[in-house]
Amino acid sequence: MPPITRFSVAPLATMTRKLADVASGRVSPDLVITGARVLSTYSERILPDREVWISGGRIAAVKPVGTYRNGSAKLYDAKGGIIAPGLVDPHIHIESSMVTACAYAEAALLNGTTTIFCDSHEIGNVMDVAGVEAMLEDARHAPLSIFLTVPSTVPATSPELETAGGDLTPEKIAALFDKWPEAVALGEKMDFVPVTMGDERSHAILAAALSRGRPVSGHVYGREFVSAYAASGVTDTHEAIDRDIADDMLEAGIWLFLRGGPPTTPWHSLPEAIKTVTELGSSHKRIAVCTDDRDADDLLNFGLDWVVREARKAGMTPEQAWAMGSLHGATRFGMENEIGGMGGSRRADLVMLDDDLKPVSTWYGGELVVDQKKITPLLDETLSKPWRYPEAAYHTVKLPKTVKLTPELPTEKVVANTIKTELPGIILGHVKVELEPANDWQTHFERHGLCFVTVIERHGKSAGNVAYGLLSNFALKSGAVASSVGHDSHNIIIAGTNEADMQVALRAIEEHQGGACVVQDGKVTAIVPLPIAGLLSDKRVHEVAKEVQALKVEWEKAGCTIPYMGFNLIPLSVIPEIRITDMGLVTVPQMEIVPLFESPEA
Amino acid sequence: MPPITRFSVAPLATMTRKLADVASGRVSPDLVITGARVLSTYSERILPDREVWISGGRIAAVKPVGTYRNGSAKLYDAKGGIIAPGLVDPHIHIESSMVTACAYAEAALLNGTTTIFCDSHEIGNVMDVAGVEAMLEDARHAPLSIFLTVPSTVPATSPELETAGGDLTPEKIAALFDKWPEAVALGEKMDFVPVTMGDERSHAILAAALSRGRPVSGHVYGREFVSAYAASGVTDTHEAIDRDIADDMLEAGIWLFLRGGPPTTPWHSLPEAIKTVTELGSSHKRIAVCTDDRDADDLLNFGLDWVVREARKAGMTPEQAWAMGSLHGATRFGMENEIGGMGGSRRADLVMLDDDLKPVSTWYGGELVVDQKKITPLLDETLSKPWRYPEAAYHTVKLPKTVKLTPELPTEKVVANTIKTELPGIILGHVKVELEPANDWQTHFERHGLCFVTVIERHGKSAGNVAYGLLSNFALKSGAVASSVGHDSHNIIIAGTNEADMQVALRAIEEHQGGACVVQDGKVTAIVPLPIAGLLSDKRVHEVAKEVQALKVEWEKAGCTIPYMGFNLIPLSVIPEIRITDMGLVTVPQMEIVPLFESPEA
Repeated sequence: MPPITRFSVAPLATMTRKLADVASGRVSPDLVITGARVLSTYSERILPDREVWISGGRIAAVKPVGTYRNGSAKLYDAKGGIIAPGLVDPHIHIESSMVTACAYAEAALLNGTTTIFCDSHEIGNVMDVAGVEAMLEDARHAPLSIFLTVPSTVPATSPELETAGGDLTPEKIAALFDKWPEAVALGEKMDFVPVTMGDERSHAILAAALSRGRPVSGHVYGREFVSAYAASGVTDTHEAIDRDIADDMLEAGIWLFLRGGPPTTPWHSLPEAIKTVTELGSSHKRIAVCTDDRDADDLLNFGLDWVVREARKAGMTPEQAWAMGSLHGATRFGMENEIGGMGGSRRADLVMLDDDLKPVSTWYGGELVVDQKKITPLLDETLSKPWRYPEAAYHTVKLPKTVKLTPELPTEKVVANTIKTELPGIILGHVKVELEPANDWQTHFERHGLCFVTVIERHGKSAGNVAYGLLSNFALKSGAVASSVGHDSHNIIIAGTNEADMQVALRAIEEHQGGACVVQDGKVTAIVPLPIAGLLSDKRVHEVAKEVQALKVEWEKAGCTIPYMGFNLIPLSVIPEIRITDMGLVTVPQMEIVPLFESPEA
Repeated sequence: MPPITRFSVAPLATMTRKLADVASGRVSPDLVITGARVLSTYSERILPDREVWISGGRIAAVKPVGTYRNGSAKLYDAKGGIIAPGLVDPHIHIESSMVTACAYAEAALLNGTTTIFCDSHEIGNVMDVAGVEAMLEDARHAPLSIFLTVPSTVPATSPELETAGGDLTPEKIAALFDKWPEAVALGEKMDFVPVTMGDERSHAILAAALSRGRPVSGHVYGREFVSAYAASGVTDTHEAIDRDIADDMLEAGIWLFLRGGPPTTPWHSLPEAIKTVTELGSSHKRIAVCTDDRDADDLLNFGLDWVVREARKAGMTPEQAWAMGSLHGATRFGMENEIGGMGGSRRADLVMLDDDLKPVSTWYGGELVVDQKKITPLLDETLSKPWRYPEAAYHTVKLPKTVKLTPELPTEKVVANTIKTELPGIILGHVKVELEPANDWQTHFERHGLCFVTVIERHGKSAGNVAYGLLSNFALKSGAVASSVGHDSHNIIIAGTNEADMQVALRAIEEHQGGACVVQDGKVTAIVPLPIAGLLSDKRVHEVAKEVQALKVEWEKAGCTIPYMGFNLIPLSVIPEIRITDMGLVTVPQMEIVPLFESPEA
C-alpha cells in the first residue's frame, strides 16, 4: 500500500462523473458504512438509519439503511454508532506538542480529527522560511489534512529586544502564499498593539494576505483593542477569554474559535467565552472550537473531541457542538465544500462516535485508520515511515564553547528586577527585591525565594548573548530545569539553583540539539530530546508522550511552581509584566530593557 | 462627483491602517450614522443604541451611541431606525427584468439590496461570450456589487433541438473564470439529467469550475436526482420547491436559496421549502433567500427585502430572516469578510429599516444612495450616465425578409400535438387534439380552444428556421402576442389567431431589434422595446416598469391564460411535457422532435 496522505484522494474536479455513477447506483461504491445514525452538521440533527456510500475516498451519497444490496463494496457495520464528519481544528501549533506533523497525525486521528489549520511560527522563529517549508513538506507526507496559516509575527517583537532565528518579512510571507496552495490564511497576528496603532510592517503583512484574498487570523486581549483590530481586517480569534470580549469580537465580525484545554490551565477559556451564546443569546453559527497548544501527553486526553464534549457540557446540543468542531471551522476557511460535513462529493473523512460523542473509529479519505480506538495496520505503516527533515533542521543549537550561566554576586545592596512566577502561569509579575549583601547566592535565594533564570542565544546570530535574571516564587528546590523551546525566539532558557547543574542542562540540550530537561546533582534525571529545530522530537507520539510524562514527574519533584509549558513562556516578551530574552529583562507593555540590578535609590 | 461603482471603495488591503486609525479614534470617520439599533447578522440579535463609524466607504467600527464627539464627520441621525447590512441576492438573472445591470441597480438599492450574484445565461444564449462580457462591463459600471455565476448550460439543450446564438463550451467557461475575477462560481447547471447521468460535456464544465476552486450552483427538480447531483459537486440550489426536497438537498450538502416571488406565481416556493426549518427542525445557517427572476414592474414590489419579510412571516425571527438575506449568501460565496455583516473593515453597504423590516435608506460603499425611500441626486447622476453596450448588441434580431407564420390548413383529418398552457405556467401539457377537416383555422380554434404558436430563429444561424405549433387553452381572443425573450435560445415566439397580426408583431420586434408586444387589428397596442440583445431595454427601471405594466394590461385584455413570463418559457425544452423551438415541437423528458400533425391511426 502507498502511504496515506491528503493527496490519496483525487481532486473533486476529476471525480464527479464517477461519483454521479455511484450515487445513481450504476457503479458500486468501494465501501458502505451501514447501520448507523448520521450526525448532520448541516441541519444539526441526528438522522436515523443511514448508510454512507464511499468511492475513491469521497462520499458519493448518504442513503437510507439497506439501500445498498449485493454489490462488490466492502461493508462496515457501524453497529448503532453515530457517523459524523471528522473534526476540523481551525487553530493549532503542531510544535507545541513537540512532534512532527506526521507524528501529530496519529493522535489527531485517534481523536477523530482529520483536518488541522496550523501556524508553524515556532519553527519559523528558528529556521525562517526554511523551517516553515520543511514543516509543510512534513505535512504533505502526513496522513492528515494539514493547512497552513502563515506565521505572521516572526519575530514576536524586534531585534532590539531579542535575537530570533527567523525574520518573516512581508515579502517572505507573500512568497509563501504564492508558492504553497495550502497556505490558506495569515496566522495569528500576535502583535495586536502595533496592529491597532497602525504599524507599517504589521499592516504590510496584513496586506500580503488580504490582497491575495486570504483571511487573517487574530490574537488579541483587551476589549479596548477589539474594534481597531477588526478594522485592520482580522476575522478570527482564539483568545476570547471571557463572555464579554467574546461577544465584542463576534459583533466585530470576528469568528470565534473557543479554545479548550486541560481544565487546570488558562488554555481552557471555552466555558467562559461560550456564554456569549448560552447567556447572551448569540447564534453559534460563527463559532468553532480549537485546541491551540497541547503537550504531547495531553494530546490524547484533551483532543478536539474533548473540547467538543466540553462545549456540549457548557450547554450546546451534541449536534451543535460537533458542528462547531467540524463544519464551522471549515466554513471559516472556505472549505466547507470539501470537509466538515457529509454532503455528496466531500472527502470521506469520517468518525464513528458513541452516544457520549467519543470517537471509536476514524476513516481518513475513505480509509479506516482507527478501528475501535486502535490504529489500523494501514495507518501504522504510514506512520512508521515518516518524512525526514533536512539535515540543517537537526543542527540549530549553536552555542559558544564556554558560557557563564549565573550573574556575579552583588557586592553592595541592590534592587533586583525579578520575575514572579505564579499559576496559571501566563502573566508574570514584576517584583523588585532588595538584596542586602550576602556571601553567596544561596543566602539570597533562601531569604527571598529566588533562583537563577538565564537565557542563552542559540541561533549563532549574536556574539554569544547571555542574559541573567532571577525568578521569584518558582520554588525550584535544587538542580536546574531547561528548555530550547523558550517562546518565541526559542533561545535556551535555564532556571537553576547553581551554575554546575545549569551547565549540565545546557550541554545536555546541546548534545541532543534541542530538548527539555531536569538536572539534579549533576545528572540529567529526565529529558525530552528535541533534535528537529530544537523544537520537535522525531519519535512517534506515544513515545514522546511518555518522555514528557517522565519530564513532568521530575519537574514536579523539583518543586517548580509553574509547569513546563508556562516555563517556556518566560521569554515571550509580549505578555505582561516582565520577561527575559537573550538581550535582557524586558518590561511589557513598555517594551523596555531593564537591568537585573538597580541601585536602591533609583 | 465620479460615478458610484463597486470600485469606489478601495480594496481592504490598502485601507487597514486608516481604518485602525479611525476605529482607535486617532482619525475622524467620514460619516457617523447614529441613534440606531443595529441588526447583527452575526449573532442574530438587535443591539440597542449604536452608531456606525464609516471611513473610505468601509465600516471602521460600530460603537455605543454617543461615542463620537466633536469631529469633522458627517452625521446621519437614524432616528430610531434599525441599521442592517445591505441585502445580498445569491441568485438572480438580470435579463429577466429586461433592464441593464445599471438600471437594475436602482431597483435593488431601493429594496436595500447592495450585492447580487447574477447568472447572465440569457445574453450568453444570444451573444455567446461577447454577451456575457458586455454584461460584465455593464456590471462594473453599475452602482451595485455584481458578481457573476458563469452561465453553465448554454445552449439549454443541443443544436439538434434548437438554434441558439451561444455555445459556451468548457473552454470558453474556463477562459471566463480566468479573465474575470468577479466570476465567482459556476451558474446554475440546469441540465441536471445529463449531469446525473455522467454526461461528458456537462462534467467538463463542472471541472472547469471545480479545478479553479469555484463552487457550482445548481438547478434540480426531483428528489431522485438529488444525491447524484450533489455527488457531482453542486453546492447550492434555488429550486427547492417543497419541504422534503429542501430537506434532502440540505442534507446532501447543498446550500438552499429559498426563492420568493409574486405569490400567484410558482416562483414563490419559499413558504413550502422553509418547512425544513419550521417543521423538520433543520438549522437555518445554510439557508439564504433569493429572487431568481423578476418582471421589471415587480422588482419594486417583490424585491429581496420582500422575500426576507416572507421568511419572517413563515416563522423566522427578523434577525434570522435578515441574515438569510445577507450574511448567508455572502458566506456561501466566501465573501463574508467583505459583505453581509457589520464587522469592522467590511464595505459600508447598509440599509436603515423600519420595524417591519422595510428599507427606508440605503448606503452603498458609505454613500447615501436612497434616503427616505427616494434615490439621492448622487445616485441619480450615476444612473443617468449608464454604460452603453457595444453596437453589435443592438443588432441581434436577424430575420428572413419574408416568412410565413402559420401552418398550412390540414386537408384531411389529423391529430395535432398541441401545447396546453395552464397556470401556474411552468409545466405545459401535451394534448393530442383530433382535427376534423374544416374550411379555415378559425373553425378549428373555436372548436378546440386553440391558437397558433410559431417560433422563428433570429440569430441568423439557420436557413430561416420556422416552427409551427398550436396552443390549447391559451385563450387568446384575437390578434397576436410576441416576444424575443423565448427561453433559452431567445428566438422569436409569436402566438396569434391570424397571420396578419402575427406579421405585424414580428416586424415590430424586428424594428426595435427585440421586444415584447401585443397586436390587435393590425396595430401594436403595447410594446416593450428590448434593443440590447433582444433582451434588454436601455431605459431606466421605472420607465421599463411602466412599459411592462402597459404590456400586461393589453396582455390580459387579449385573454391570455398565462402571463408574459410564462409565455416566454414555452420554447424552454427542458421542462415537461411539450415545448416548441425553432426546430419544431419537442417532448420532454424524451427530448424528441414530434410533428405538429400526425395521421389519426398513428
